[in-house]
This record gives sequence, structure tokens and C-alpha cells, in this order.
Amino acid sequence: MIQVDAQSAGTSRSNAKIEAAIRAVLDAQRDAWNRGDIEGYMDGYARSADTVFVSGDNVMRGWQSVLERYKKSYNSREKMGVLTFSDLEITLVGKDAAVVLGRWHLQRANDEPHGRFTLILRKTKQGWKIIHDHTSAA
Amino acid sequence: MIQVDAQSAGTSRSNAKIEAAIRAVLDAQRDAWNRGDIEGYMDGYARSADTVFVSGDNVMRGWQSVLERYKKSYNSREKMGVLTFSDLEITLVGKDAAVVLGRWHLQRANDEPHGRFTLILRKTKQGWKIIHDHTSAA
Repeated sequence: MIQVDAQSAGTSRSNAKIEAAIRAVLDAQRDAWNRGDIEGYMDGYARSADTVFVSGDNVMRGWQSVLERYKKSYNSREKMGVLTFSDLEITLVGKDAAVVLGRWHLQRANDEPHGRFTLILRKTKQGWKIIHDHTSAA
Repeated sequence: MIQVDAQSAGTSRSNAKIEAAIRAVLDAQRDAWNRGDIEGYMDGYARSADTVFVSGDNVMRGWQSVLERYKKSYNSREKMGVLTFSDLEITLVGKDAAVVLGRWHLQRANDEPHGRFTLILRKTKQGWKIIHDHTSAA
């Protein structure tokens, strides 16, 4: 008979709950993006001046700045394309912190940029939010 | 007179200690690299099959695999060049987890690749070790 330690079972249930909450954040981001709702997409990020976006050799800081940048760069549904996330791997690194590794893919008429991302999320009063996004492309 | 809360002062001292320990890990990596010691460089990473290295669209897993890859790719001091890290920003996200954002720069005879990295470190029995490295280039 397999012994199930009560505390471990509790922890594992609680981790599954956290994973589901984090997946819901990313699902909501994808859905918002795919209906052309950049503010909705940005709702996955912590609304803080400290939120960090890293790609290539660039670091952008602050929820508001990044929102404005996105609105400028993706000013049409064509440019936004259809976003999918896949191969998500969620690792809890504290009671209110998690790391997500995943793939992103943008299907557009003339190209399909894609690559990987590492996200760090914290549990905030507003729920789990991304505080740090490092994205790289193929 | 400024009131200093005893617990906050303790926390801040303890955070400074953790930051110093993490900086020491990266300093040791840089020093090892710059003397051609790839194993020494790799000592900054957790010796686990789960350690993750992300760049571009690629994910490599496992301390041993990455060590072998590095040994093959950087089989001369010329290829290794001189490594520097700068602009380190260390954020504690739990009592035994931290995120480091920084710049990397490799000075070589014919090029100087550089970019940014996001590291996730955990406090292990062997000290603070990198469990996840997402590196991007300019």
C-alpha cells in the first residue's frame, strides 16, 4: 500500500491550484491578444514601474511604458496575428513566486515569429501577475 | 529621529548577505571562464538534470549536457574570450529563491557578443546555484 503523507498531499493539491491559476493568467493573455485587446493582454503583468521586459539586448521597465510601446508596435490586428503559448513548465520557487518556461508563436499573414519565454510571477493582491518577462526569438 | 524597525533592519542585513553571496557566485563564474576553466564556470549552476538553459528558440537541460556542450563550443581560449557581467539587479522572490537580471559581454579578437540574462537561483546545500538561465544576445 502506498503511504500518502497528509502534508505532501495537501501541498500537491495547493501546487495544482497555483499552477491552474497561473495557466489561467496566460490563457487570458492569449485570449485578449487574439481579440485585439492589448490592455487585456497587459493585465497579466503587475501594474508596477518595476515590471521588467527583457528581449535581445533590451530592457524595458514599467507596465505603462510597455503598454504604450505595444499599442504603437501592434497597431493593427494584422500585426498582432494569432498568439499561442505552448509547452508551459511551471516551477514554484516560493509560496508566492513561480517561474514559467514556455514557447510563444505568432501566426501572421507573412511571417510567424516564435521563440521561448521565461516569466517570473508573484502572487499579488490582484492575483498572480508577471513581474519579469525574458523573451527570445528563433 | 528615524525609527528603525528591528525586524526590517534584520531583513535588510540578511538580504544584503544573500545579495553578496549571489554576486560571489557570478564573480566566481566570470573568473573561472576567464582562466579557461569551464568546469569552474559551470559550478555556478545546480548539478541537476533539471537545470535549464534557454537562448533564442532553444532549451538545453541538465548540468552534464551543458558542460559537454560548452567544452565543445569553447574549445580554445580565443573562443572563450574575456567575459564580463554588469548591471546586476538581484531580486529575492522567496527565502531561498532569487532572480538576477544582468548584462553579459564577451570580448574576443574578432567580435564581441553581448546581451542580457535572467537567472533564477535557489539556495541549495551547496550554496546559491543557478537553476534556470535565459540568455539573449544583441
